[in-house]
Amino acid sequence: MNEQKTTATRSLLPEPTLRRLPWYLSYVGMLENKGVGTVSSTQISKELNVDASQIAKDLSFLNIKGKTRIGYDVPTLRRSLVEFLGFECSHNAVVIGSGSLGRALMQDAGLAQYGLSIVAGFDVNPAIVGTKVCGIPIYDISELKARLEKLHVGIAILSVPVEHSQRVADLAIASGIEAIWNFTPYRIKAPQHIALANTSIYAHLAIMYNRMSHGTK
Amino acid sequence: MNEQKTTATRSLLPEPTLRRLPWYLSYVGMLENKGVGTVSSTQISKELNVDASQIAKDLSFLNIKGKTRIGYDVPTLRRSLVEFLGFECSHNAVVIGSGSLGRALMQDAGLAQYGLSIVAGFDVNPAIVGTKVCGIPIYDISELKARLEKLHVGIAILSVPVEHSQRVADLAIASGIEAIWNFTPYRIKAPQHIALANTSIYAHLAIMYNRMSHGTK
Repeated sequence: MNEQKTTATRSLLPEPTLRRLPWYLSYVGMLENKGVGTVSSTQISKELNVDASQIAKDLSFLNIKGKTRIGYDVPTLRRSLVEFLGFECSHNAVVIGSGSLGRALMQDAGLAQYGLSIVAGFDVNPAIVGTKVCGIPIYDISELKARLEKLHVGIAILSVPVEHSQRVADLAIASGIEAIWNFTPYRIKAPQHIALANTSIYAHLAIMYNRMSHGTK
Repeated sequence: MNEQKTTATRSLLPEPTLRRLPWYLSYVGMLENKGVGTVSSTQISKELNVDASQIAKDLSFLNIKGKTRIGYDVPTLRRSLVEFLGFECSHNAVVIGSGSLGRALMQDAGLAQYGLSIVAGFDVNPAIVGTKVCGIPIYDISELKARLEKLHVGIAILSVPVEHSQRVADLAIASGIEAIWNFTPYRIKAPQHIALANTSIYAHLAIMYNRMSHGTK
């Protein structure tokens, strides 16, 4: 598939690995909270339904070694995962399109725990430009470039209506953004050097509805 | 084609196809808004960066045929996609875990456009039980089973702290839920007949951060 190919050329770390590492982190974090000292890949495998050899392979990207018959030291593994995934650094982001979904993201305090700090919102609607959401100011989209420079922002979160997706993405790229987190269901195009993550949450609904119609009912 | 066959074909629908169909929908919706009458798979291919033969194959799951050298009728294709994806039906859902992310989802009016109607929230925190978010009442988790029966709800949206994910999923399943939309980063386990969709939005951050560190910087 196209997505996979783009990903492969961009970095050596495979996307499936990057998707699994946060699962390990959430499990290991739970263990640490419970005061568990060590965990083996077999244990993680059982709990998360991922092949043990795959887990060992994924964790080999980190600078961490498990001990034979003992496994990984839980606090060390947790810290390594957090660092490796970039969740401990603060990444400044802006939300472009401060409608329903955009505002929801501004209100989600959970993002901060994963190193994302939303510092501003942008919109074209004069009724909301100048207002604040959870203390985050909403600016007019015409101010995008100037504000991005002042705020040291690398990430644009895209939550505009689908018909504006590509145009707004182009504008963000021209304004010097490094990464786009695309929440629109549109497949936007971006140059190779732009980090692009697609999170079309609505697409997951289609999968769920399909599975439901063939499940219990 | 008889109905049995249609059902059988749909049940085999591969997840990658289900992920791509909403992209086609968003593009075709844009075209319809612009008054465009027909579209070919080659055109969709160019716009969305998906192989044209793949598009034809994906669309073959729908009961729609394109015409040689003309392509698909845009309004018909759009309507077929909406129907096929289940976005025109209303699916009742509850949010379990009405913290930051849960409340954000309740506030996202966009979900309704995709056929999802959030009718109640649940939590354990006495400070928020009894309150409303956008008119949606928050109940105590102990009332889950009784409320689900009254409200005709098939979908549980899971947005609890990670350490409670599995326990709360088990509770939802025992209360008669058919589908779980899991927003926690935890890999919950569910019986085969439960439709399970994982939307770990924070995992996408890891992918983006990794791409950023190998991109322009």
